[in-house]
Amino acid sequence: MSDRIANAQLRGKVMSAEEAVQFINNGDKVGMSGFTGAGYPKALPTAIAERAKEAQAKGEEYKIDVFTGASTAPDCDGVMAEAGAINYRAPYQSDPSMRNAINAAEMKYQDIHLSHMGMLIQQGFFGQLDVAVVEAVRIKEDGAIIPSSAVGNNVEYLDSAKRIIIEINSWQSEDLEGMHDIWRMPLLPNRVPVPITSPGQRIGSPWIDIDVDKVVAVVETDAPDRNAPFKPADEVSEKIAGNFLDFLEGEVAAGRLTYDGYIMQSGVGNVPNAVMAGLLDSKFENIQAYTEVIQDGMIDLIDAGKMTVASATSFALSPEYAERMNDEAKRYRESIILRPQQISNHPEVIRRVGLIATNGMIEADIYGNINSTNVSGSRMMNGIGGSGDFTRNGYISSFISPSVAKGGAISAIVPFASHIDHTEHDVMVIITEYGYADLRGLAPRDRVKKMISIAHPDYRPLLEEYYERANKGKFHHTPHDLATAFSFHQNLAETGSMKG
Amino acid sequence: MSDRIANAQLRGKVMSAEEAVQFINNGDKVGMSGFTGAGYPKALPTAIAERAKEAQAKGEEYKIDVFTGASTAPDCDGVMAEAGAINYRAPYQSDPSMRNAINAAEMKYQDIHLSHMGMLIQQGFFGQLDVAVVEAVRIKEDGAIIPSSAVGNNVEYLDSAKRIIIEINSWQSEDLEGMHDIWRMPLLPNRVPVPITSPGQRIGSPWIDIDVDKVVAVVETDAPDRNAPFKPADEVSEKIAGNFLDFLEGEVAAGRLTYDGYIMQSGVGNVPNAVMAGLLDSKFENIQAYTEVIQDGMIDLIDAGKMTVASATSFALSPEYAERMNDEAKRYRESIILRPQQISNHPEVIRRVGLIATNGMIEADIYGNINSTNVSGSRMMNGIGGSGDFTRNGYISSFISPSVAKGGAISAIVPFASHIDHTEHDVMVIITEYGYADLRGLAPRDRVKKMISIAHPDYRPLLEEYYERANKGKFHHTPHDLATAFSFHQNLAETGSMKG
Repeated sequence: MSDRIANAQLRGKVMSAEEAVQFINNGDKVGMSGFTGAGYPKALPTAIAERAKEAQAKGEEYKIDVFTGASTAPDCDGVMAEAGAINYRAPYQSDPSMRNAINAAEMKYQDIHLSHMGMLIQQGFFGQLDVAVVEAVRIKEDGAIIPSSAVGNNVEYLDSAKRIIIEINSWQSEDLEGMHDIWRMPLLPNRVPVPITSPGQRIGSPWIDIDVDKVVAVVETDAPDRNAPFKPADEVSEKIAGNFLDFLEGEVAAGRLTYDGYIMQSGVGNVPNAVMAGLLDSKFENIQAYTEVIQDGMIDLIDAGKMTVASATSFALSPEYAERMNDEAKRYRESIILRPQQISNHPEVIRRVGLIATNGMIEADIYGNINSTNVSGSRMMNGIGGSGDFTRNGYISSFISPSVAKGGAISAIVPFASHIDHTEHDVMVIITEYGYADLRGLAPRDRVKKMISIAHPDYRPLLEEYYERANKGKFHHTPHDLATAFSFHQNLAETGSMKG
Repeated sequence: MSDRIANAQLRGKVMSAEEAVQFINNGDKVGMSGFTGAGYPKALPTAIAERAKEAQAKGEEYKIDVFTGASTAPDCDGVMAEAGAINYRAPYQSDPSMRNAINAAEMKYQDIHLSHMGMLIQQGFFGQLDVAVVEAVRIKEDGAIIPSSAVGNNVEYLDSAKRIIIEINSWQSEDLEGMHDIWRMPLLPNRVPVPITSPGQRIGSPWIDIDVDKVVAVVETDAPDRNAPFKPADEVSEKIAGNFLDFLEGEVAAGRLTYDGYIMQSGVGNVPNAVMAGLLDSKFENIQAYTEVIQDGMIDLIDAGKMTVASATSFALSPEYAERMNDEAKRYRESIILRPQQISNHPEVIRRVGLIATNGMIEADIYGNINSTNVSGSRMMNGIGGSGDFTRNGYISSFISPSVAKGGAISAIVPFASHIDHTEHDVMVIITEYGYADLRGLAPRDRVKKMISIAHPDYRPLLEEYYERANKGKFHHTPHDLATAFSFHQNLAETGSMKG
């Protein structure tokens, strides 16, 4: 048995995942660890999938509701979705099998702000949580747990669930201990200010206290996180990164930013990673991150002495960087803090520290409304994630995207966004490889020209035609021609290209 | 000269509005007091309008950018819009003349979250503010001012502007002194937690310190706020109020609310006032309000001993209640607090105290996205106001509306909202005279039946037909048929009724 389980009572609860899954019943609400492919349980999801398949073979039902931090991995969301083991899922996913199941109406999915999820569970809006399944690095003598590579909603789920199952994953470095900062927001009506005024501030403990008597099983694992390599930056990503840096430089020139005052929030992906690579060679120094995910690019910035501290709730690293993190966690924990996602994404702290939010998107419309979630209005991709938390409350909110997808068949700039996740009230700057559209201080009509200027040249005449048509109407605050507002999307459905 | 001006230096600045307007130049950015028809300057706007007309008569241009707290009145927004004196306006308006000018593209309007406006000015996103024009009850010996019936963005505008013009309105009761609670958020990067943990807590001073040397004029006025009578509750409003109370009772039954734990936020209008009348006869006690506007219904709740404290940034009272407030401000200031709108609407405090947000809407779609601003996508009504601040961060967010408008020609429940101000991620409960749709914990597909159940019976078959058609598509997370998503709005445009 692993010497990572220092509590005697919990040593007595060690069992296999196949045994532990007996504590998860049909219809249960299960809160799992896991955020962006890090820190999710490695064994129970497969055991849940197997149990579901066995039940189905006997003509019985076995389906559960699953809440996590954010996305997990093929060996978590993937196996459960493929086995038809999930009835309802929240607040975020990005798994191909699960996505298919959601879009085929084989399971239910609710796409929830990441800062809200744990709080909503605590408020009882989802009923009683039955089980928390949480990966940890180590169990302390008093039963407190050291989380692994993500904190997510662990605190809220461990506190709320009737039963607890802990997975101790020996793949995760024990040197992660000391990187976490666990602080509990008291429940209503006793909430207090979150006492964080700068990204690097620690306010809690490096462990999560739990009710040891609720633990029904401890499962030992030795399996890596889902660590996908980032694609090398291509020409388009580099141009977007360049335009983003131009924007930052413009803010410095206007006296609204200093070279040592940039606090970063960044969505996950290849384009954000290209932005971070661009920052390596920039004039910006002492960059801080108050964000939800630590990516390769931030590790590079830390190693280069460009970033002083990164606060997040999880990692999303390539295999190479994940290995480095495991080897050198002792060093990195000096400049990296992992917090509960209710705190990493808390509106109050985001607004207070004054960060620049930068997230990807599916499409933006000519007035600056953003679709982050549903392709052509109906087809769920991943979810809104934390982008709403950061966009609404950031000092500046920005969105970055290539101007086209699918070889030019899809434009990222459309007349009317086919699903709206961030409204015109929240979106300040949109950046493509063709430049940036700074929408601050502009009435809707004055945004159109800027938005068209960052669209792909192939789509600019079509967008101009739309706006001309829209202006033939009687009302000119936000001119639209509702009969053709979705013409780009209808073209795509009918001809395979938004060009029609 | 009024004995309300106790500062000697400022007594020397007293002049007429016609003289004072010389300090407001063509192209200036002007920050004014005023929120929901209360506390706006009574003299300068007319002087600005006159100056614009004189300039036009000479073939010259005289146009300014106007920032306020929120809406003002015919003798403020109205006269300036009618004179063509405004180039750009933010963050909110509700004036018929101004609305026409906006929709005719005769002026620019940007619709901004009320908690953001002052902060965005301070951040320099609108350039340098030239003039602040602020109504006050009294100037103290040291030059500090006592605001009148609204605080709005006074602090931010007075701090940011190069020049200050103060209007001392003797119509406003001097007994308002002591009702305000002025607290300044330090500027970035020095922001701190707002130290409010309950609605009734005072954290600042009853006056606003100003830089006396920036004051270029003091103008004396004696004019009432715009106080419009509320309509008596009709049958529909009463049914909506009843359904809202049923919802609250359900929350109590579910253990998620207590009879003495209701903290109210309420939008302005006749239906919210009917809700408050309903609360008078309810089991709820010790109600608190953390809201932006004090309405008649709250005064009744205070007088009946049902509401212990109301925190807001302004009043929106009928003439009768406004008179009572002026007569009895000394008594009411024991239970009413007026704060800067950055604080009354601050995400951090809203989330911390755990209020139930209740706002009106133009339309909701079958998935729970809300249009608060643009009729049929293009025609601006008023603006989002503070509804986004409260909806995103409330313990529970709710929207209330009659199911139909214009004698049934317009349905408040539509297939796809023609403008989206609050997304499916933020909206929990929608209430009409036909019941309430509690969308919490539901995947999009599962919301549709609930939304159709609160639509007017005439529209239910049309909504069902739409959803059936939408489900013929390939993707079923948020089924839409984009070709007919705006069919209700197109019907309205073509036939005068959404029924077609």
